Amino acid sequence: MNTGSEKIVRMAELEIDPAQLEEYIALLTEEIETSVAKEPGVLMLHAVSIKDAPEKVRILEVYASRQAYEAHIQTPHFLKYKTLTTGMVRSLNLVDVDPIALSAK
Amino acid sequence: MNTGSEKIVRMAELEIDPAQLEEYIALLTEEIETSVAKEPGVLMLHAVSIKDAPEKVRILEVYASRQAYEAHIQTPHFLKYKTLTTGMVRSLNLVDVDPIALSAK
Repeated sequence: MNTGSEKIVRMAELEIDPAQLEEYIALLTEEIETSVAKEPGVLMLHAVSIKDAPEKVRILEVYASRQAYEAHIQTPHFLKYKTLTTGMVRSLNLVDVDPIALSAK
Repeated sequence: MNTGSEKIVRMAELEIDPAQLEEYIALLTEEIETSVAKEPGVLMLHAVSIKDAPEKVRILEVYASRQAYEAHIQTPHFLKYKTLTTGMVRSLNLVDVDPIALSAK
């Protein structure tokens, strides 16, 4: 049973309206930098776009716990991102993943 | 033109033979930890498996430069991984990506 104290690791797969991609990327970047800077429980947010299809965005997300994630989605900066990007996101698929190795300098 | 000095960011999408998944994960973990520890130009290797389909592995890779990547794939630890996992990997798709924001604690 998930007691809520284990890390949440997830891959978000998004498709963005190409006409609004630049504005979406600015909003996503601000949301990511604010979340990792201000929230102790947001451990990692790595967002990339596919070179041959830049409207396809992938985000690898690591939260310290279920509680940290639930707190994250109630923050003003997340709600700002979510509200302002609603009309830009054509699809959003949240894929739960298990970490194998997360290694970085 | 890619002068070879800019970062390489890539997402590898693999499907592994389920019967050999445990052994594959051990080899991949060893390869990732050795690469990031020993190679200055291997900046990040983050591997996850999809919870509902653990034979599907995704690796987010960041190398300091094209040269760093070319050096990486000639190292003994990479060649060991590549040789020993050949019969375990059913498919490998390398997706070039552009970083939007890579933020972590």
